[in-house]
Amino acid sequence: MKVALAQINPTIGDFDGNAARIIGQIEDSKAAGAHLVVFPELAVFGYPPKDMLLRQDLIRANVAAAERIASHCNNIAAIVGFVRPDPSGRGKGIFNTAGFCKKGRISDCYAKMLLPTYGVFDESRHFSPGQSIQTVTVQAAEERVRVGLTICEDLWNDSQFEGRRVYGLDPVALNVEAGIQLLTNISASPFEAEKQRHREALFAKQMREHGVPLVHVNQVGGQDDLIFDGASVVVDGSGRVEARAKSFCEDLLIVDLDVPGSGRIEAYPERIAGIREALVLGIRDYVRRCGFQRVVLGLSGGIDSAVTAALAVEAIGKECVHGVAMPSRFSSVHSVNDAKELAQNLGISLAIIPIEGAHQAMEDAVRPHFGDSPAGIAEENIQARIRGNILMSLSNKFGWLLLTTGNKSELAVGYCTLYGDMCGGLAVLSDVPKTVVYELARHINSSADSPCIPASTIEKEPSAELREDQRDVDSLPPYDILDAILLRYVEQDMTAGEIVDAGFDRATVERVARMVDHNEYKRKQTPVGLKVTTRAFGTGRRMPIAARY
Amino acid sequence: MKVALAQINPTIGDFDGNAARIIGQIEDSKAAGAHLVVFPELAVFGYPPKDMLLRQDLIRANVAAAERIASHCNNIAAIVGFVRPDPSGRGKGIFNTAGFCKKGRISDCYAKMLLPTYGVFDESRHFSPGQSIQTVTVQAAEERVRVGLTICEDLWNDSQFEGRRVYGLDPVALNVEAGIQLLTNISASPFEAEKQRHREALFAKQMREHGVPLVHVNQVGGQDDLIFDGASVVVDGSGRVEARAKSFCEDLLIVDLDVPGSGRIEAYPERIAGIREALVLGIRDYVRRCGFQRVVLGLSGGIDSAVTAALAVEAIGKECVHGVAMPSRFSSVHSVNDAKELAQNLGISLAIIPIEGAHQAMEDAVRPHFGDSPAGIAEENIQARIRGNILMSLSNKFGWLLLTTGNKSELAVGYCTLYGDMCGGLAVLSDVPKTVVYELARHINSSADSPCIPASTIEKEPSAELREDQRDVDSLPPYDILDAILLRYVEQDMTAGEIVDAGFDRATVERVARMVDHNEYKRKQTPVGLKVTTRAFGTGRRMPIAARY
Repeated sequence: MKVALAQINPTIGDFDGNAARIIGQIEDSKAAGAHLVVFPELAVFGYPPKDMLLRQDLIRANVAAAERIASHCNNIAAIVGFVRPDPSGRGKGIFNTAGFCKKGRISDCYAKMLLPTYGVFDESRHFSPGQSIQTVTVQAAEERVRVGLTICEDLWNDSQFEGRRVYGLDPVALNVEAGIQLLTNISASPFEAEKQRHREALFAKQMREHGVPLVHVNQVGGQDDLIFDGASVVVDGSGRVEARAKSFCEDLLIVDLDVPGSGRIEAYPERIAGIREALVLGIRDYVRRCGFQRVVLGLSGGIDSAVTAALAVEAIGKECVHGVAMPSRFSSVHSVNDAKELAQNLGISLAIIPIEGAHQAMEDAVRPHFGDSPAGIAEENIQARIRGNILMSLSNKFGWLLLTTGNKSELAVGYCTLYGDMCGGLAVLSDVPKTVVYELARHINSSADSPCIPASTIEKEPSAELREDQRDVDSLPPYDILDAILLRYVEQDMTAGEIVDAGFDRATVERVARMVDHNEYKRKQTPVGLKVTTRAFGTGRRMPIAARY
Repeated sequence: MKVALAQINPTIGDFDGNAARIIGQIEDSKAAGAHLVVFPELAVFGYPPKDMLLRQDLIRANVAAAERIASHCNNIAAIVGFVRPDPSGRGKGIFNTAGFCKKGRISDCYAKMLLPTYGVFDESRHFSPGQSIQTVTVQAAEERVRVGLTICEDLWNDSQFEGRRVYGLDPVALNVEAGIQLLTNISASPFEAEKQRHREALFAKQMREHGVPLVHVNQVGGQDDLIFDGASVVVDGSGRVEARAKSFCEDLLIVDLDVPGSGRIEAYPERIAGIREALVLGIRDYVRRCGFQRVVLGLSGGIDSAVTAALAVEAIGKECVHGVAMPSRFSSVHSVNDAKELAQNLGISLAIIPIEGAHQAMEDAVRPHFGDSPAGIAEENIQARIRGNILMSLSNKFGWLLLTTGNKSELAVGYCTLYGDMCGGLAVLSDVPKTVVYELARHINSSADSPCIPASTIEKEPSAELREDQRDVDSLPPYDILDAILLRYVEQDMTAGEIVDAGFDRATVERVARMVDHNEYKRKQTPVGLKVTTRAFGTGRRMPIAARY
């Protein structure tokens, strides 16, 4: 049997656009002689639709699109993800559904049994769980193949939780007991650094255990904070990857399951390269889907803005990226020079807008009210907010999306100014720890033909330059220590005590934990930030603000 | 049997503080001769703890606190909400639990069976559902009373959904079948305008149907966006309210269930008065729990800032509220005068900080880059962002929490400036439609002994005053029309077509719907906003941004 893995990049809610894309892939699959074409989870709607699922008009439009798609399924079968209303009206009233289409109609529907409700996932908020598996038969020339339908989490069942029963159900085992010859899994599984390795290990384990092959089709594309990396795979019954689609772009992968080695095996990028590709895709899709052509960002001469600019150029082209340097009385000469060199290397425009006039005017305005207290955070933040105002004025004037450049380490501890450097529509690096920003910079430079990020930007000591001779290390532990603590505290839910036991200085750990806890209010107001680790600030981490802990 | 309803205001995560408060109420209940004292849902932890529930150290601390509390339960029984680990380690690993305490220990535990996972609730994210009911026996003098334990949603079971089965389980009916003589329900049910009437109607219907009395104890207090109104009730087996605790404050209500009429019945405020009390409590608790003493806000002379200031004074006292007027070249004379009159009426300080200097300096800075395009939104927003910068500088300098003054109508359609008037730590009116802001203003004035909100503030035409002769109606439909459409579109999930069918102008409805949809990015970055309607922007409404719909 010949199977087509149609790894598409749908736009959430764009039923006409998504249907057209799906129908196009059905036709291409027919032309390639495929007997079955498989699309990602909720391909008709795009994933995750969130509370758009509460709107009956959108549910109806998605069903109509699914039926239109099915009408094109002649001489081929298709598995298409869509939202199906529960005719009984029970529970949440809708199912996350894999529709099996053949002979011009949706002939069978499988409702997802395991609904992830953790991390960034809220599926129990919207869907009723399915109560039973569904197998279907695909006609492949003379042969009839019994195929099992599963959706994403169904494959991430109890077998992954080290003996802990989380769901109490294993849809894969139920399918195997029902005698399937092929398991399909339609997915919308977001990227995390190193996750593909984890995914394929899990798939291999399951398929080896059950002795059936797997066709897994993942969504690709950026959807707000989530980046879907594609890399759909065919795994054989011995757990070996038989074929792998491209990562971070659409692909139509054709595999003849009866002919070992008939499918392409695309390489999956190594860790830093993967993060880079994810961020580039995340920028491109967010900019495009929000209806922007161009972006603007502040270039401080520092590494965060340099890496953000380089990624933006990769995502949407140098002529669409506008840099702005906004020197103040505290800016070093090298800051502006580094920004100039970066802009020149990248081939992007650079506007230099000194803030001294506005800075003085703001000081004059507030001086009578500040009394004679020494300058501090208030005075520093004024400068950052003037810069935010200038950048937003350019964004408003020219319709450029403002990119936020702060990294995860500073967002974690609140080393950033709300309404200042936190301004923007998309926070590119908000889930990238500072140490990884350095890795990205080196990786970008090493893969470039000509100089890209200036050496001095990489080598100089990090500083916010909001007062004389300011250095990050005056306020924060060194970044390698800070990031190691943050990894444990934020991503791994370790307690301060456990982190100390792991060999870190108690005072430092407690200070960092306190800073993380106390800056929840800043993170409440961040732009959408691209998720690349196991736990990003944002939808996957929901903490109260006015709490004591 | 004498029952004490201990309606407390816990702080999330403050196990020591909450335990001390609970133990104090146990002692008071003993002194009042109560046989049973009942506390709200998760009283030990505070509700909602959100992802603090992923932290094992906090779960352990909450169990230790619950056990300490139980040790005080001698000569009295208590029902105390806490988080109990599931010894089997299955599922989510923890239960939302009602602990029954007597003879100095937690003798029985009931795990909440119905976990709300909609609106602002995410309980399936954190908890495993309980699988069975739990009845207990309370010794009351000679008598032994069979008592059923339920938690919040257990009472909002299938019976409320007009024949639709949502849970497929009715813990109340199961308790009644088990022969209980009294049903208890511990709750954390957030305020919405008119919800108490709905609550009591539901309770009456259930109790009438089952013929048993109900003791319902609700949390009180502000927890970020959610305001819990208390108003705990005793409903008899015929559905009549036998006793009602105070609203919007802590209370210990003692009722002898054998003596009809033995409990107090406190009045519940009518609609606008309830919204007002909710907002006052929400401000007070957020300010206090975030560690602030004082607040600052911009006074534009308009109605939103006037109402916000009046509520803030009610919440934390006039000496703790600081007003700032920031006139520009476009400000009318009456704006500053109205701000002055308001400040005088309220007895709060008023700083007048003209923004002309900063405005000019900002224009000078960006002019070379703006080209010769006519002035528009970009130029208007610059002013709003200068004001945001000034207010935040005062917040940073003096440690005052900045209150955001925008209303729900303008937030819905994006008639507000990100990083400008949207700056702040708490958005007081972000769930209050403009028409209700007017109702609040009149209500505040009618209940005040002396003039409060200036008449001209209420009577003048709304304007943002960001350009010459600007009026809200130049950009928006009249507020009565706008609010009527928003109610249907945002709160009731009606489609544009359905709203048109309900008698609204098609072009207006489509324009409003488009504005709501396109401004999701602004709402992503709002401060915490106090929820007073059935659906506030924020945790109860989760829409994708880069979507097409």
